[in-house]
Amino acid sequence: MGFYPFSNQIINFDDKLFVMQNIKNYIEQNKQRFLDELFELLRFPSISADPKYKEDVARTATFVADKLRAAGADKVEVCPTAGHPIVYGEKIVDPNKPTVLVYGHYDVQPPDPLELWKTPPFEPTVRDGKIYARGACDDKGQFYMHVKAFELMLQTDGLPCNIKFMIEGEEEVGSDNLGVFVSENKERLKADVVLISDTSMISLENPSLETGLRGLSYVEVEVQGPNRDLHSGVYGGAVANPAIILAKMIASLHDENNHITIPGFYDDVVTLSEEEREALNKAPFDIEEYKEDLGIENVWGEKGYTTLERTGIRPTLEVNGIWGGYTGEGAKTVLPAKASAKISMRLVPNQNSNKITEIFKNHFKRIAPDTVTVSVKPHHGGEPVVTPTDSVAYRAASKAIEKSFGKAPIPTRGGGSIPIVALFEQELGIKTVLMGFGLDSDNLHSPNEKYDIANYLKGIETIPLFHKYFNELS
Amino acid sequence: MGFYPFSNQIINFDDKLFVMQNIKNYIEQNKQRFLDELFELLRFPSISADPKYKEDVARTATFVADKLRAAGADKVEVCPTAGHPIVYGEKIVDPNKPTVLVYGHYDVQPPDPLELWKTPPFEPTVRDGKIYARGACDDKGQFYMHVKAFELMLQTDGLPCNIKFMIEGEEEVGSDNLGVFVSENKERLKADVVLISDTSMISLENPSLETGLRGLSYVEVEVQGPNRDLHSGVYGGAVANPAIILAKMIASLHDENNHITIPGFYDDVVTLSEEEREALNKAPFDIEEYKEDLGIENVWGEKGYTTLERTGIRPTLEVNGIWGGYTGEGAKTVLPAKASAKISMRLVPNQNSNKITEIFKNHFKRIAPDTVTVSVKPHHGGEPVVTPTDSVAYRAASKAIEKSFGKAPIPTRGGGSIPIVALFEQELGIKTVLMGFGLDSDNLHSPNEKYDIANYLKGIETIPLFHKYFNELS
Repeated sequence: MGFYPFSNQIINFDDKLFVMQNIKNYIEQNKQRFLDELFELLRFPSISADPKYKEDVARTATFVADKLRAAGADKVEVCPTAGHPIVYGEKIVDPNKPTVLVYGHYDVQPPDPLELWKTPPFEPTVRDGKIYARGACDDKGQFYMHVKAFELMLQTDGLPCNIKFMIEGEEEVGSDNLGVFVSENKERLKADVVLISDTSMISLENPSLETGLRGLSYVEVEVQGPNRDLHSGVYGGAVANPAIILAKMIASLHDENNHITIPGFYDDVVTLSEEEREALNKAPFDIEEYKEDLGIENVWGEKGYTTLERTGIRPTLEVNGIWGGYTGEGAKTVLPAKASAKISMRLVPNQNSNKITEIFKNHFKRIAPDTVTVSVKPHHGGEPVVTPTDSVAYRAASKAIEKSFGKAPIPTRGGGSIPIVALFEQELGIKTVLMGFGLDSDNLHSPNEKYDIANYLKGIETIPLFHKYFNELS
Repeated sequence: MGFYPFSNQIINFDDKLFVMQNIKNYIEQNKQRFLDELFELLRFPSISADPKYKEDVARTATFVADKLRAAGADKVEVCPTAGHPIVYGEKIVDPNKPTVLVYGHYDVQPPDPLELWKTPPFEPTVRDGKIYARGACDDKGQFYMHVKAFELMLQTDGLPCNIKFMIEGEEEVGSDNLGVFVSENKERLKADVVLISDTSMISLENPSLETGLRGLSYVEVEVQGPNRDLHSGVYGGAVANPAIILAKMIASLHDENNHITIPGFYDDVVTLSEEEREALNKAPFDIEEYKEDLGIENVWGEKGYTTLERTGIRPTLEVNGIWGGYTGEGAKTVLPAKASAKISMRLVPNQNSNKITEIFKNHFKRIAPDTVTVSVKPHHGGEPVVTPTDSVAYRAASKAIEKSFGKAPIPTRGGGSIPIVALFEQELGIKTVLMGFGLDSDNLHSPNEKYDIANYLKGIETIPLFHKYFNELS
């Protein structure tokens, strides 16, 4: 087949003509509808963190269930939980074929600060080929590719595997109730692999596959000083100011090399070999572009590590929010009664989120002066994971990307966290493949979140190939 | 007059029978109305710091003007300024008699945090003899005593002095437009002394007179990191977090002895003699009561100074508010684009607010790392003052308090700031007497601000005596 232009790809002529053409044709004929449906989904303000959106979150679940049914899924159900519902659906074509469990989440991050959005977060808007909306990429745009790829397969060449869908509504708040659901539904969720599109690739030109994710420990701290806000003139200088004490406590959590100072924090961290670090640093990365994109003079981070290592293989501690005292218009001369902060730590193998939360709690209380009282409230956590690159599923994903992108994917380590991955391994004993089609520049969790239409359609094109190869290689 | 029970007081029998009796009778007959009128005044949400209350502030000024007119003042006028209006009124009984200029302010601090108020801040409520409302003491309750004492004198024995009123609406935001008004109205404001009730005394049992006030420098700082909020998983550990950088910068402003570290900050501070410090520390003060009232385990402050010194004669630096990132419900894993703080410094003689603001600005920008950009916006300032204790006016105030309270007042140093005092000295060349009837425990600038009815009525009883003695001693 020397004349074949993609001879570096392990595919045969027939299936290229056959499957690929059908896929491309179906997408070409339906892409406007694929976009319209995603836009409908994006219009729901499914903000799981804020109780006042509970109804909107529920309505979103119903919408997702309807779309799964319409696409051809059986046993579709909106499963209630102690929190937001989980949407389940499946299509079993042949018990002897492998089964893929597709996981995604229909909830989104809060959109604030609202004033920084160029167009409303829940009114999807297209600007030069990109869809701007909260959840466009994380994760509505990405999980919906699977719903449409599922429809595409059923409408063209059929399903190469059995497929199960589990789309939850609490990923952005720590998937609090997913654990219970999973352990109570082990039979129903039985599968050979979990397929998740909730991560990024380097670019369409440099496709990549994530092979690891960081864990998370998220806490909220409160420093209480006097029993009431005080006049800063009458009491200033004589009573400990909780905002200043909190600042001093936070400041002490990183040393001059930006190492985290909490005793025992690094104890369980797996250190990579020189070879592994070299491989990791081979990924295409331009520090100047990076700084320019973020509008910063200089990067920051733990001494002795590159930017890719700092976000990939090293644990971190960040302040996600801080507040206390008067934050309104003008000047108020008050000595605040208390000050608070939301602090999260990203964890790497083999750190454990409960253990880290515990040592943070103890340390933070230990360093508090006796002029204040400190409380630490754990929000949620998740365990770090490394996904194998030698599994059938990983090879199937790699091959699918190689075929649709014309280039083999680069293995990378993701900085984010998807607690469900560790949960699945532990509860169901199955591995996960992280086949994400987003970009780091998609402004996840930020104003003006976006998802390129090209990535959305490319995902819908790639997913059927994954199922095909997963079946063939199994 | 050996049989006379208050023989220690320099007063004669007649005026005790005469003036005191008339004063007491008039207060007795009118006290309910005095309270009702104050309650009306307290119902106006005259929050000068927040633009959306502009109309309420204006309505408050009109109300004050009406009450001055009703009490018998001439030439009453609501004088517009670039900001909130100033209310003026006067009564000239005899050009040869001394003239007292009464200053007060009808604007109030913002009431938040609202949830901590037991009863609504703008619905005055009496609980065991105390009036709870924003502005009850600072300064509506205190300046209104002068309006009622003015009425009382006109309705009984007449005015011993000429009296001018200047009640402003921007004291809580730095009296920005008062300077212009004063310099443009020097003739109209001509007086022999300024009388202000906007400070505290130790207690009704231990009356005191303030002999000094601290100055103020108030700034707002902003630390800007990346050009947008970032996903703390994707970018955390590699991009400087403005909330952490701000915390480190604030933490560095006090050293381990709680000395302020800004170079040059203490250069102009007048240090008191051992004798002066001893005298200051003689004031009745119970550290255990103080801690219990505030609900704190321990006091805090500059090493080598007592609590009375820390709040009276030493400059301070406090964080009045801090905010950045996600502060809503639940958990959001964001690396904030920026973080801000409101920071105020209390100044003592001879520090200068403009100079201190300038050195703070330079220092704060100098200590910022190159991973962020910092801006410092000055809010407002005021100069520290010391009032003479040997003046006719101080002696008149002391004598008035001694007569109505039966005990000579203790001279104290106030921690608060009233920029107008320095302004008056400079623009009109006259001194001020700070005859305050509030208590430090009145929750100024805090939720549940209060003013004791007993102090309110005691003030109305004392003020006429001040005018009487000021005239006699002049």
